[in-house]
Amino acid sequence: MDDSRLKALRSLMAENGIDLYYVPSADDHETEYVVDHFEARRFLTGFTGDAGVAVVTKDRAGLWTDGRFFIQAEEQLKGSGFSLYAMGQEGVPTVEEFMAAELPQGGVIGFDGKVVNTRDGRAFERIAAAKGGALKTDRDLADVIWTDRPPLASSPVFALEEKYCGENTASKLSRIRAKMREAGTGWHLVSSLEEIAWILNVRGNDIPSVPVIYSFLLIGEDRADWFVDEHCVSDGIRKTLTAAGVSLRPYDAVYEAVSCLPAGSSVLLDTGKVNYRLTGLLPESVTICDADDPAILMKAVKNNTEIANIREAHICDGIAVARFMHWLKTNIGKIPMTELSVSDYLESLRAAQPGFVEISFTTISAYQANAAMMHYAPTPENNAELKPEGFLLVDSGGHYLTGSTDITRTFVLGPITAQQKRDFTLVVKGNLNLANQKFLYGCTGLNLDILCRSSLWNLGIDYQCGTGHGVGYLLCVHEGPNGFRWKDRRGANCVLEAGMVTTDEPGVYIGGEYGIRIENELLCKKAEKNFYGQFLEFENITYAPIDLDAIDPSLLSDADLKQLNDYHARVYETLAPRMEEDERVWLREYTRPLER
Amino acid sequence: MDDSRLKALRSLMAENGIDLYYVPSADDHETEYVVDHFEARRFLTGFTGDAGVAVVTKDRAGLWTDGRFFIQAEEQLKGSGFSLYAMGQEGVPTVEEFMAAELPQGGVIGFDGKVVNTRDGRAFERIAAAKGGALKTDRDLADVIWTDRPPLASSPVFALEEKYCGENTASKLSRIRAKMREAGTGWHLVSSLEEIAWILNVRGNDIPSVPVIYSFLLIGEDRADWFVDEHCVSDGIRKTLTAAGVSLRPYDAVYEAVSCLPAGSSVLLDTGKVNYRLTGLLPESVTICDADDPAILMKAVKNNTEIANIREAHICDGIAVARFMHWLKTNIGKIPMTELSVSDYLESLRAAQPGFVEISFTTISAYQANAAMMHYAPTPENNAELKPEGFLLVDSGGHYLTGSTDITRTFVLGPITAQQKRDFTLVVKGNLNLANQKFLYGCTGLNLDILCRSSLWNLGIDYQCGTGHGVGYLLCVHEGPNGFRWKDRRGANCVLEAGMVTTDEPGVYIGGEYGIRIENELLCKKAEKNFYGQFLEFENITYAPIDLDAIDPSLLSDADLKQLNDYHARVYETLAPRMEEDERVWLREYTRPLER
Repeated sequence: MDDSRLKALRSLMAENGIDLYYVPSADDHETEYVVDHFEARRFLTGFTGDAGVAVVTKDRAGLWTDGRFFIQAEEQLKGSGFSLYAMGQEGVPTVEEFMAAELPQGGVIGFDGKVVNTRDGRAFERIAAAKGGALKTDRDLADVIWTDRPPLASSPVFALEEKYCGENTASKLSRIRAKMREAGTGWHLVSSLEEIAWILNVRGNDIPSVPVIYSFLLIGEDRADWFVDEHCVSDGIRKTLTAAGVSLRPYDAVYEAVSCLPAGSSVLLDTGKVNYRLTGLLPESVTICDADDPAILMKAVKNNTEIANIREAHICDGIAVARFMHWLKTNIGKIPMTELSVSDYLESLRAAQPGFVEISFTTISAYQANAAMMHYAPTPENNAELKPEGFLLVDSGGHYLTGSTDITRTFVLGPITAQQKRDFTLVVKGNLNLANQKFLYGCTGLNLDILCRSSLWNLGIDYQCGTGHGVGYLLCVHEGPNGFRWKDRRGANCVLEAGMVTTDEPGVYIGGEYGIRIENELLCKKAEKNFYGQFLEFENITYAPIDLDAIDPSLLSDADLKQLNDYHARVYETLAPRMEEDERVWLREYTRPLER
Repeated sequence: MDDSRLKALRSLMAENGIDLYYVPSADDHETEYVVDHFEARRFLTGFTGDAGVAVVTKDRAGLWTDGRFFIQAEEQLKGSGFSLYAMGQEGVPTVEEFMAAELPQGGVIGFDGKVVNTRDGRAFERIAAAKGGALKTDRDLADVIWTDRPPLASSPVFALEEKYCGENTASKLSRIRAKMREAGTGWHLVSSLEEIAWILNVRGNDIPSVPVIYSFLLIGEDRADWFVDEHCVSDGIRKTLTAAGVSLRPYDAVYEAVSCLPAGSSVLLDTGKVNYRLTGLLPESVTICDADDPAILMKAVKNNTEIANIREAHICDGIAVARFMHWLKTNIGKIPMTELSVSDYLESLRAAQPGFVEISFTTISAYQANAAMMHYAPTPENNAELKPEGFLLVDSGGHYLTGSTDITRTFVLGPITAQQKRDFTLVVKGNLNLANQKFLYGCTGLNLDILCRSSLWNLGIDYQCGTGHGVGYLLCVHEGPNGFRWKDRRGANCVLEAGMVTTDEPGVYIGGEYGIRIENELLCKKAEKNFYGQFLEFENITYAPIDLDAIDPSLLSDADLKQLNDYHARVYETLAPRMEEDERVWLREYTRPLER
């Protein structure tokens, strides 16, 4: 790419009196998945990786990204006028350090206030203030240059009936208002698309694999306003929402609405989520109560209807995955297969299941060394051919009306080494040890994570990421606040509650050689309550064989083997009645009890 | 006890214009172990339990204590005029709630500002302020009534030579001053007796089993003042300290010293430790930098000299315990034994070891059901006779010039039940699983605790306390900040560092039946550093047989059995060369490898 875009941006900066311009990879809602419309950073720099931030001054232009993307960024930035700032490398300043150093005395920092959250915006305020400077945040300069910018999607909204969602909007609003009263606030501004979809029991198609709708929700004590493209909402949905006290207003009207909040009122919002433009419009006398959206925790604790549905979704999904495994292991080496072709085949099997909506994320179909890259996904340009040897890792899932799934299996396609077998066996051991642990109420993911890592750490191996994350119900497959992690980060301290669903996905990743991951979803449930307190346990709700061809039983204790055999017995009992006779014969073989 | 003391206190309160008087169980330094001199609460109420707080108003007098002491308190408070406020029971107000409710409008809260820490004192300020009232904290009213109050001990100070402590005072002060500079403070007031003893490499005998000296230490940028009873300090020690820039001043002079700190200066101190009287004397213009004493973390990370010494202390201690076990198991049922008599015998075996100073805490020698009470210690009035059946739990330790030990063994004296054997075996399994876990740098006790609890929790059993605590070097056996706990409390988040020593003491406590605990000390050490990061591991530094008579090998995996057999092999190799021939024969039998 040439540097014409950078030049155009600099000329706009000069016109607007801006000394330093900041362009993140984010939308107006801090959504995890950023659609093309919001990829201004990609447009300006030419760098197509998922994570990155661009900062431009009169003389310098930098692109910050992390280790996953260094090589790609170096390549793609050529000629663009942007230099790579390799995050975390010695001597490389952080974005904030760069801004503080490069902003001239009395200078102006510019950015589009809609795509920067309030917390970051305030940090930039402080950087400017330290130089006696100011911010200019009311214009998206990239938009001026970006003449062929893809439009923002506005897909039809569909309602999630109560048989799927289990709780109506009036009830959800009433629970949220109770939390507002506890916090002493009369208003709550919800900017996160997943929380809005959950509260209003609606879904859309604005983002691939994340069935949400671009919108804002402003909840008052006795009213609520949904700021959304009204053309996408049917009369039926409008009527249902009206009955719950929710009025529809145009998407952009939220900016005027917040500026008209009553003087002296208090509004609950998460400054890490709500964009800087919005909070900047709040009247002086309105105070912000900065806290997580109450809906986050409510959404994470699935209700009984959702739980019953999710169980069904996982059985359907398990049939697709088991069928895929049968096909894969039967045909490998006999018919041509690539990472993409098998991934497409798996999608077709899911699509045949009742209630299927779409795949819940881009399938990771990774052969041999490709699987060592945790976030690898094949493309037509980079699509390995599968051979009857080694491992194929497939991390995939489906959105169903009955919930979302996220499952990883690593399949043996042919001969594997003793080390591969050992690593696979220890990953399975960790996965099952966590799934079978009973624990006292009050535990967080910090307490339990080591159950997955114990055997690997004893060999000096780590998988360098969390062990698991919460899963949405026909929403984002990565959902907080629950998770299994050993490092204390935001959210890691969430107490596990009955009704939460969390993935259990240890792995081993040997760069340039192979990758192994086994991922099931665990439903947290109440176990006995006794003298010591309330115990909780997990129900393993993912049903698909774990490839016995890679298990070395001599590395498992009797207790480990029982856990594996019990799991496989449940997989067989659950799936077999819904499968064909030849599949059942195969399934029985691949769920057979192992002995030492 | 009659209510004459309460009446006398109320009359003093009236004279001094005090509406509500507060008496905690604490000394001027917030030391864990409170000596008789400071037991004003015990003097006033007649209640002799370790934990309790008294609050007196014109019409009411309450004693707050926790569940361990309800029965004892009910009994001992009879006639004293004090009522029991059973903490944690439904409908029972907390001390603060009681104070807020009972303080009259414009009323005065009184307490001895020396025995209340600054944080609590400030909370009481707020309670008084809410009522338009005030505090009066300059008089210890109990002292007026308590005519036969035991004097404060002033025992001779002894120096810990560098061959024992491994780092001189000048070096320690220099490290602390670096932390003071980081915090931007020119002064640091140390009130905790253990930190002072560590910094100055001195020990005393002011508190039984906690070899510290009542004193304060005020550290400046280029001077330090030790406020102490100077008569207890020899010329030699004084000279050593002077060389390190430490001057001696009278104990009480600290109060004037803080009032003379330079205007505008900043002082690092822990408001949860430093008493309210002291901080109240700071000049208005002096700011407090409220933080943990830097010495706490430095003290927890043992240096190489200390580590070498501690290893030796544990071998000596292990010989005493193994000898005790041999004697106990050989003679039970043949000679009379009580909880106290065997505890005295064990002390005599420790006393015969080189470098022995004193026992490191009151021995818990608890037979059968007594062992279910975690903090039980026998007294002449309550001293069970041992019979050749069931379990005897002995939790004991020694202070040596080479360090302090804390070890628990549960011994089989005769027939035990299958359930007892199961519980014992699972406690041992947990103990060894934790001790043998390798882990990445960054882990805290929160991450590792479940390794001890896993098998017990799976049976719905918990031991209702932390798994382990740090251990001082010839200091308090309970030392922070390291520990193994599953609940996130102050200190539980301490990252484990190489050089820290932490106990590993899971247990099972069945009320009215039996108690089991196995406690070893684990030294944290660096293991390999590789692509994944710095791994750490533990060295089990406690050497004494774990009673094989209570192990059911069928409940252990091959890996568990290997851990047990490896441990016992090390115990034999380490202790046998220093023991007598008949002891060696016995030791070999009780450290033999088990098979399934």
